[in-house]
Amino acid sequence: MPPSEESSAWATLTRAPALDIPTLSKALEIFGSAQGITAASDASRERAGLSAAAREFLSSATAASNSAERAWLENPRHHVVPFTDPRYPVLLRATEPYPMALYVVGAVDALNEPQLAIVGSRNPTPQGLDTAHELSEYLAGRGLAITSGLASGIDSAAHRGALAAQGITLAVLGSGIDVIYPRSNRPLRLEIQQQGALISGFPLGTPPRRENFPQRNGIIAGLSLGTLVVEAARSSGSLITARQAVSCGREVFAIPGSIYSPLSRGCHELIRQGAKLTETAHDILSELNFSSFFEGQPLASARRDITASLELGMDKDHKILLDALGFDPADLDVLVVRTGFKPEAVSSMMLILELEGHVQAAPGGRYSRVVRSRR
Amino acid sequence: MPPSEESSAWATLTRAPALDIPTLSKALEIFGSAQGITAASDASRERAGLSAAAREFLSSATAASNSAERAWLENPRHHVVPFTDPRYPVLLRATEPYPMALYVVGAVDALNEPQLAIVGSRNPTPQGLDTAHELSEYLAGRGLAITSGLASGIDSAAHRGALAAQGITLAVLGSGIDVIYPRSNRPLRLEIQQQGALISGFPLGTPPRRENFPQRNGIIAGLSLGTLVVEAARSSGSLITARQAVSCGREVFAIPGSIYSPLSRGCHELIRQGAKLTETAHDILSELNFSSFFEGQPLASARRDITASLELGMDKDHKILLDALGFDPADLDVLVVRTGFKPEAVSSMMLILELEGHVQAAPGGRYSRVVRSRR
Repeated sequence: MPPSEESSAWATLTRAPALDIPTLSKALEIFGSAQGITAASDASRERAGLSAAAREFLSSATAASNSAERAWLENPRHHVVPFTDPRYPVLLRATEPYPMALYVVGAVDALNEPQLAIVGSRNPTPQGLDTAHELSEYLAGRGLAITSGLASGIDSAAHRGALAAQGITLAVLGSGIDVIYPRSNRPLRLEIQQQGALISGFPLGTPPRRENFPQRNGIIAGLSLGTLVVEAARSSGSLITARQAVSCGREVFAIPGSIYSPLSRGCHELIRQGAKLTETAHDILSELNFSSFFEGQPLASARRDITASLELGMDKDHKILLDALGFDPADLDVLVVRTGFKPEAVSSMMLILELEGHVQAAPGGRYSRVVRSRR
Repeated sequence: MPPSEESSAWATLTRAPALDIPTLSKALEIFGSAQGITAASDASRERAGLSAAAREFLSSATAASNSAERAWLENPRHHVVPFTDPRYPVLLRATEPYPMALYVVGAVDALNEPQLAIVGSRNPTPQGLDTAHELSEYLAGRGLAITSGLASGIDSAAHRGALAAQGITLAVLGSGIDVIYPRSNRPLRLEIQQQGALISGFPLGTPPRRENFPQRNGIIAGLSLGTLVVEAARSSGSLITARQAVSCGREVFAIPGSIYSPLSRGCHELIRQGAKLTETAHDILSELNFSSFFEGQPLASARRDITASLELGMDKDHKILLDALGFDPADLDVLVVRTGFKPEAVSSMMLILELEGHVQAAPGGRYSRVVRSRR
């Protein structure tokens, strides 16, 4: 299918320098369409208020669609969704600034699904990865679409969790939508465009420049009802996404962690600034009043106490022992003191807990708790 | 030294039922002293407004000091400090209700030292114990007295931290001051009464009944500028102390932790309700504006970044590797991926980190981080 001339014209406009939404809106009123703008004379574009830089670009040979752009636009799964399009996401349009058009690969309908952004460190702890995956899987399974930035680490875990739940996930890029970055996420990209959408506010071919990421983060925050930060160092880009969520009036959620973990610092900072301290998926669902989206299912059933679910059906003494172990390694003597159980009992129960994958033995007869059995 | 008749009279009054501070204040105006009240006739006590129950008790033989009480009062390190005494703690008197008299063993002057309450679970994680000890040691070393409840777990660690810093620590009991509870803390009691004070608002001989602890917690909160909760399960008594601190207008501090640790739930609940999320001693000092108490030392030097201090002087690559390890076990392959270092380099650096006590090997070639080398 040949690309529509209107889509081609929008692709051209996204490449034009110094063209803002107010100017564009005025020009659209005058010329009737994007194609009308690109086909107009320089003099009439000047009268319509376009800047010299924009006019110079539109009059040059580079304004015309190149062959790569035409080829991209020909694919029926590829879309350019301008801000004037009813499919343009309503929540994003409520933010300032919003991109004049979104490049989309996959399900355009996903843009207006109720979304939660899940973002965080590119170098998270294994626990952080699990948390992102679990929460995303659970929430996507309840009908909330999961939006993130396709970066390695927390972002990827969030996308994967949603995919695992057969839910919808949206990945917003800091490059042109045709630029494969990060390369390691190529298989994940392919899955996401089957089960959701890849999105970019940048023209085709835009490299993943550092300065693109704040805008990318603004789209993530703007698309979403709220933003959850799973793990973030103090200088993490995720904090920018969170601040953008605040500035467009959306909820921010942050997961606390050990005061000894540098990857909890950013989340703790957010909580101090008013982000909702989040322990369970329920904290998110209740804050977003999301129960209305899946009527008939009581909100109480959305409650997810992660530890409780893990320890469901566990023998009471085993539970006491596991609680006594805590979250750092301890030896059997310490556990005997903490529980008041006989040494033989502790020893045999620890063996069972080890076999069941709840604890693991470490050198020197010490045991550590295995928080998640599944990765 | 024989006990003063006035102290004996106060000891008697603390044993009297149904005697509140307003009634007592009025009676003290009429009779001039505690001794005046205990020596008065039943008819004049009735005219002064004492309840039938209080009068019946004061007229009975049990009102007189028994031999155990006399023996206790004879010790010059033992004090009864009534609310009319200038040594009665000013901050506690600003709360409602406050005990009519405090039994004190040790330094009475400590009652009016600026204090921070550090409380928490009786069954903490090893990490929680360390945190309580470290923060207490640091803050006591800066001149803040540390107040707690002499329970096992976090309370004891807080007292011990202050003692280690040669600082002042106050232990508030939920029993009569002459009742040794918990028994395991007898040596700690002895140290505290040398370097601070044991305190009780209960008559001598009062057993450590469950229902005493809210009042004990109220004294801890009332004595202190603020209350820090280090670890607490959702139903922990520490949350009562925190609520009492709020209700008398004091600061509440809480330490966040893993969402998978039941002992962080109580702290997270407090943070949601407005407690200050606390990562470092600096968070406490700045909130309390405590710098004024140790002029000449800039507040910046009070900053305590626990992780940073641990990793001071560490090789940069080792630091990167340790950050990549995070706070859960990981194997060498994972670390190679996370750091981009060569496998041989990761392997040899992990060996060094293990020898230096920063990490420990676990079965299956996995490594865990050792957060604190010292207990």
